Amino acid sequence: MERESQAGSALSAQSPTRAVAWKTGSTLAIEEVQVEPPKAQEVRIKVISTGICGTDDHALKGLLSANFPLIPGHEGAGIVESIGKGVSSMKPGDKVLILIIPQCRECSACLHPEGNFCEKQDVLPSSGLMLDGTSRFTCKGKKIYHSFRASTFTEYTVVPEIAVAKIDAAAPMDKVSIISCEVPTGYGAAVNSAKVTRGSTCVVFGLGGIGSAIVMGCKASGASRIIGIDINEEKFPRNLKKPVQEVVMEMTGAGADFAFEAIGLTDTMIAAWDSCHRSYGVCLIVGLAPSSSKLSLKASEIVSGRTLKGVCLGDYKTRDCTPQLVIDYLQNKINIDPLITHQLPFDQLHKAFELYHAGKTKRFTYIPLFGKVPHQPIFSKRRKMHTI
Amino acid sequence: MERESQAGSALSAQSPTRAVAWKTGSTLAIEEVQVEPPKAQEVRIKVISTGICGTDDHALKGLLSANFPLIPGHEGAGIVESIGKGVSSMKPGDKVLILIIPQCRECSACLHPEGNFCEKQDVLPSSGLMLDGTSRFTCKGKKIYHSFRASTFTEYTVVPEIAVAKIDAAAPMDKVSIISCEVPTGYGAAVNSAKVTRGSTCVVFGLGGIGSAIVMGCKASGASRIIGIDINEEKFPRNLKKPVQEVVMEMTGAGADFAFEAIGLTDTMIAAWDSCHRSYGVCLIVGLAPSSSKLSLKASEIVSGRTLKGVCLGDYKTRDCTPQLVIDYLQNKINIDPLITHQLPFDQLHKAFELYHAGKTKRFTYIPLFGKVPHQPIFSKRRKMHTI
Repeated sequence: MERESQAGSALSAQSPTRAVAWKTGSTLAIEEVQVEPPKAQEVRIKVISTGICGTDDHALKGLLSANFPLIPGHEGAGIVESIGKGVSSMKPGDKVLILIIPQCRECSACLHPEGNFCEKQDVLPSSGLMLDGTSRFTCKGKKIYHSFRASTFTEYTVVPEIAVAKIDAAAPMDKVSIISCEVPTGYGAAVNSAKVTRGSTCVVFGLGGIGSAIVMGCKASGASRIIGIDINEEKFPRNLKKPVQEVVMEMTGAGADFAFEAIGLTDTMIAAWDSCHRSYGVCLIVGLAPSSSKLSLKASEIVSGRTLKGVCLGDYKTRDCTPQLVIDYLQNKINIDPLITHQLPFDQLHKAFELYHAGKTKRFTYIPLFGKVPHQPIFSKRRKMHTI
Repeated sequence: MERESQAGSALSAQSPTRAVAWKTGSTLAIEEVQVEPPKAQEVRIKVISTGICGTDDHALKGLLSANFPLIPGHEGAGIVESIGKGVSSMKPGDKVLILIIPQCRECSACLHPEGNFCEKQDVLPSSGLMLDGTSRFTCKGKKIYHSFRASTFTEYTVVPEIAVAKIDAAAPMDKVSIISCEVPTGYGAAVNSAKVTRGSTCVVFGLGGIGSAIVMGCKASGASRIIGIDINEEKFPRNLKKPVQEVVMEMTGAGADFAFEAIGLTDTMIAAWDSCHRSYGVCLIVGLAPSSSKLSLKASEIVSGRTLKGVCLGDYKTRDCTPQLVIDYLQNKINIDPLITHQLPFDQLHKAFELYHAGKTKRFTYIPLFGKVPHQPIFSKRRKMHTI
């Protein structure tokens, strides 16, 4: 009963900071939004920290066929504010991560040992609605869509219980939000999806947050050589005279063991594919491409043996595995701190997006962005990447 | 010294049956061809049996940018007639398989535990010449190109030692030629490349020789359901009202664990890819596509987790593994007999190609074709395939 009473009232006045994208390509507006109580099997969460990911940027630009108006964001850490009927895996006050891919534990993907792309996901395609087909957000009398059933650019959000992972009470909430997406996506792509082998050569396309987490995973797996590549000419002033895959071929002799694409563009996917050894190379597609784009491979070349593998959240079963990554961080088994370069209060959201887009001129493309951190938000500097 | 003397003279008069394709798309001509002695590290082989494979058909139609005139064929079993200087792994009289992919044991692919697409191969691209850049065939004063450095549609051929595997002396030479390509390619794609799991659902596109060998491998691996698909409408009279991948989705609920493409067409590659479970499905590309074709995948859909893997000769290291497959056959661990539906003497080559192309109207697309079998060539009937 107590649980149900927790979920009794809509929230808005005490939390006016929600970002709404009214239409594709528009500047995010900070609006007063009504956040309905969680329905059965749902959780209302006070978002403590969130980050900007390329997938959000794609969604805002209309490249993923999302419904508008929406509240963007999908990477977040928060505290359970109230729970709907039937929620049993968490209670108000628990620290949690919000997961872009749920784990229902009932569908074909969840039941398969190698699957994690739960059939209850709302990314491909994206309805912008909760599992019952309705929204929990309204603004100025209009229905506001969810983003991937996560919507973390808001002080409060409502998420299905199956897309929430309870984490250790000692987790530092200004940091662990990146363990809801960036860390499993990148680190997991290397250690879990690719199972990077000791002594191998890895190539990473895109040195933003995901790419940096990939580099970390390659290093942890014992890769002997990691080549970093970014498409940003200003970031990487070296003016290559030939396609980057040819440069990689020259550097490696016959191609990399593993190539990772963490940008979400077909040109760099092809470059990553062509950077792999043609017989045993494994190309991991980590970046989410615009929904209209096609990856076009030379068909006859495929039989030489290469592998192309898509990766979502490092192939981790999300609710099962992300809490352990938090523990690994708390126990100093993985260090996510270097992945956080900037921290801003939520009301500087627009500045955060400017910084994100300024990846063109500065040494980062991804900014973990922190909202209503209890105390003082901080700014930190990204470590220098090792690149060609 | 004896070895060198074995390789002393060109052959032609005693073996007039060589098929020459003078140009793309032309009917194969039976010509008198001079076969030079093997040079250093080469072997001259009396071909005992050979088969027609889709790759040969592609080459003859000019879809693989091969050089003409050429002697086609790449799948073959034979007896060493003479050896060139430095050959140490076989001697005249040995039974051998001719391998489309060599194993030099020195290149990056051969030295890597997962690699088999030896850098000394001559398929992608195909020069039609031996490793020293010359040909061993002449006809009517003209240089004749080799086909993939194999050229099995001839009574005698010259092959690099690294593309020849000595096999058990008990091997029945009218049958084991299919262990030089079809069996490792198909059976190996299932048991070695895909590592088909017990209880899994497999879909096989293309039910010719390779596809049949794939089915055999899936069965041996314990697949609980194998769905066979062929593009030949006359072979499969069921008139599907929707794309075959949608039919597979309906039959399987959420897609197959493993899908194999054994045709070499991009349309069926896409159908195979889309027949896989989007999270954990593995699509194996076994068919060699025309060199100009592109496989175009929806880029955003890749991150859901599927794997696309190219397969050449079942990822087996060719010289190391094909002799063992022959032994497995001799010891009744694998049964290749059902894969042989027709056997014809070499002088009925044109009829064999007619039968091959008649796959459009009959229940096969691949005919093992046997040449100068010591005694009586035979005709046998392919077993019925299990299909949708």
